Amino acid sequence: MTSPVDARTDAAAVTEAFALLIAGELVAFARLADDAANAPELRARITLSRMAAADLEPMAGLEEHVLGLGVDAPVLEEQTWQFRELLAEIDARTVPRDWWERLVRTYIGYGVFADLEREVVTGLSGAAGELGRSALADGSLTDVTVAMLRPAIEADPQLGARLALWGRRVVGEALGVASRLLHSRPVLARLVGIPVGTPGAADALAAVLGRLTSEHARRMKRLDLTA
Amino acid sequence: MTSPVDARTDAAAVTEAFALLIAGELVAFARLADDAANAPELRARITLSRMAAADLEPMAGLEEHVLGLGVDAPVLEEQTWQFRELLAEIDARTVPRDWWERLVRTYIGYGVFADLEREVVTGLSGAAGELGRSALADGSLTDVTVAMLRPAIEADPQLGARLALWGRRVVGEALGVASRLLHSRPVLARLVGIPVGTPGAADALAAVLGRLTSEHARRMKRLDLTA
Repeated sequence: MTSPVDARTDAAAVTEAFALLIAGELVAFARLADDAANAPELRARITLSRMAAADLEPMAGLEEHVLGLGVDAPVLEEQTWQFRELLAEIDARTVPRDWWERLVRTYIGYGVFADLEREVVTGLSGAAGELGRSALADGSLTDVTVAMLRPAIEADPQLGARLALWGRRVVGEALGVASRLLHSRPVLARLVGIPVGTPGAADALAAVLGRLTSEHARRMKRLDLTA
Repeated sequence: MTSPVDARTDAAAVTEAFALLIAGELVAFARLADDAANAPELRARITLSRMAAADLEPMAGLEEHVLGLGVDAPVLEEQTWQFRELLAEIDARTVPRDWWERLVRTYIGYGVFADLEREVVTGLSGAAGELGRSALADGSLTDVTVAMLRPAIEADPQLGARLALWGRRVVGEALGVASRLLHSRPVLARLVGIPVGTPGAADALAAVLGRLTSEHARRMKRLDLTA
């Protein structure tokens, strides 16, 4: 027999999940805006600025949903702030040396975090699950960065080799963040299906990280790079 | 008798005016996104991120209008890029030492450039004039920054004195940019009513800068600071 769902626990889970999504949007906004500011030409600058702006669109709906559950705004804000700091670690730890490394960082960081968030949202049911899925639905950034990166990589094998190495460093940091997040947040860990506090927890966490790694490898393949 | 309006010249004027507006949006987006990334707490970060995103909204309409006049996209892009570099000079020349100086820079820089753009748009007639005016209509950033700055200034007279000094430096740079812009771009200068190439040009330019200065003084007054 499974334990009965407690409405308060449920609100806590939705709050934590949506705080993660809002934090993800803020971090993606800041990273893309910074990329835009460093873009070598106008078209890339406009495209990335707009992508950054689009990232904020689901935020108001997520916030509203959490507050509608009776959660106090400062509770949501405190959690969002903490997640934001954790997610932003990848940017502090991987400083790109040029435009291409910058784009690869954005491509990988965005991809891994979006996959992680999708895993978290899978654990939500009902209206919250639907809202979470729709907030994560826009994958156009991936296509945009691939379209910018592929021609450069095809034209210069040395660049490709360097970016493959760089990609390994970036994904290492991203998976590190994901792992720290699931270790320190039992509520999120349970949402992705980890039986926290049981002997199966370590294997289940490894399985999640394994899925994130496979998705990453698939993304690198789109750039013709080995993960 | 006034000289007849040449349709080509007219398209050139609209292109230059709208390139300035688009550049202004890009610069405001980058500055606000950077402010957001430096915000000391979540609410300010979200508010400024959203203001940044909102700044991009009129861009597509402006671009579409110019291309609809038969202007080639690279022509508009080249002009936009040049204006962007000129407008961004204020950011490179005024590096804020803290959050308050940062907000004051945004408040003043945004205000002066929006006033300048309004002067430029006044010179456009018909659909272009209407579109330009609607692109400049959102003044909510001013209210937001005033609401953030006023309580801090009221609580700390020393901060007020420092920010008044800082404001003079920032507006000096902003007026310098405006002046360089009108000096180097006869098409824009004519749109703001300067009779370029006649003996009255210098006085007319001084009058424009005088209006920008008065508007700036009015804005500083809202913060209880002397311009």
